Amino acid sequence: MRTILVIGIGAGDPDQLTIQAVKALNRADVFFVLDKGAAKEDLVRLRREILDRHVEGNGYRIVEARDPSRDRSSTDYTAAVEDWHSRRAALYERMMLDELGEDGCGAFLVWGDPSLYDSTLRIIDRIVARGVVRFDYEVIPGITSVQALAARHRLILNRIGGPVEITTGRRLAAGFPPGVDDVVVMLDAENTFLTLPADDVDIYWGAYLGTPDEVLLHGPVAEVGGLIERTRAEARERKGWIMDTYLLRRREESGR
Amino acid sequence: MRTILVIGIGAGDPDQLTIQAVKALNRADVFFVLDKGAAKEDLVRLRREILDRHVEGNGYRIVEARDPSRDRSSTDYTAAVEDWHSRRAALYERMMLDELGEDGCGAFLVWGDPSLYDSTLRIIDRIVARGVVRFDYEVIPGITSVQALAARHRLILNRIGGPVEITTGRRLAAGFPPGVDDVVVMLDAENTFLTLPADDVDIYWGAYLGTPDEVLLHGPVAEVGGLIERTRAEARERKGWIMDTYLLRRREESGR
Repeated sequence: MRTILVIGIGAGDPDQLTIQAVKALNRADVFFVLDKGAAKEDLVRLRREILDRHVEGNGYRIVEARDPSRDRSSTDYTAAVEDWHSRRAALYERMMLDELGEDGCGAFLVWGDPSLYDSTLRIIDRIVARGVVRFDYEVIPGITSVQALAARHRLILNRIGGPVEITTGRRLAAGFPPGVDDVVVMLDAENTFLTLPADDVDIYWGAYLGTPDEVLLHGPVAEVGGLIERTRAEARERKGWIMDTYLLRRREESGR
Repeated sequence: MRTILVIGIGAGDPDQLTIQAVKALNRADVFFVLDKGAAKEDLVRLRREILDRHVEGNGYRIVEARDPSRDRSSTDYTAAVEDWHSRRAALYERMMLDELGEDGCGAFLVWGDPSLYDSTLRIIDRIVARGVVRFDYEVIPGITSVQALAARHRLILNRIGGPVEITTGRRLAAGFPPGVDDVVVMLDAENTFLTLPADDVDIYWGAYLGTPDEVLLHGPVAEVGGLIERTRAEARERKGWIMDTYLLRRREESGR
């Protein structure tokens, strides 16, 4: 039986892999890698550094494929993502059949943690449902960019006994979520924090967390929002890509 | 200058420490440990196993203290916790002054991640504010029980583009949070999931995650809620303590 390992490799710092992840890397014969657009070169290098540092010997192969592109013009976001996942499932299945012996062990490396805003497990569920290739699979958790952000800002995400919501820039565009004062935002390409009525909200922002390019900024959105927008634009221009995340924290004095 | 390291040591599996955490453990001269009640013996053993496995040599000391008890009879939860934190800050400050040389490095070991439902950083902020002892401090993230739960159930916590809320049993008692379909519940001693109108909610539950005692159960709350309640009660009776967490997932068919 084939084995697939879905391994969280952290937000960027090769030291933020767990021992469990390092052991899993060393079980794999083949690493399946799907790359996309602008981020490709830097992320490939970072991933190669992780493998070089943590995998003993050279007895592994990397199989790279071009990630199917998502229809970003569609107005139906969920349907566009579903279609993209379907094409990815067919590709992953092909890679598993072509590149992995019947008792082989393949690994997908996931930035952050496979449980948060990553589609690998969803695609694996689809491959299971298709029933063409038989395999077992395991998940190894990894440090997320949310945790890297909190650690670098030395933050606790929740208030005493309070909730935390993790959401996307797209969702935040509809307003500060109801019932929470602490909101972590991922996948925001639009500086959505600038659209909030922000006189009582602090932001803790970080980009390229855990890498030499890491940038951290924090303060009241009303004061540092513009600086974050400019810093973000300059960094993206310089590097060709950006990965960032932030915590929005409504101040307690606001009486909620 | 004294250095304090606040190190996330994962949910229980000694292999779920990061390389960064292992390196941090090896920088510390002194480990400060506060123990509480029933969980003490097992958790002390588990923590000792982590230190034995990951710290080279025997050149470290463990300083143990009795955690100040929290006033659980108080009706004002936040005030009771604030008072408890204040007494803890005085105790931590005392330990840092008495046990750490002026250039010494001390570490607090935090189950899970210091950024989620842990008060160590809040207490350190208080010690900084008191201004009695000067020190610098760093935070090292760790795998949370939420991530261990997701990995063992092979779950993605969010729906495509959807939010996730992390909350407490106490909060959940007021009802399923607004605006989210996926809710992670921590610190629930009361089987609060049983109080929900549960005909469209699935639960993914885990206890003692990452340890040999790990238990996992999942299914519709209406079907497995009672089994989880019994399993939880028996385990707590047998071991004298329990640490568990769960995801509540509203089914998509419910049309929200």
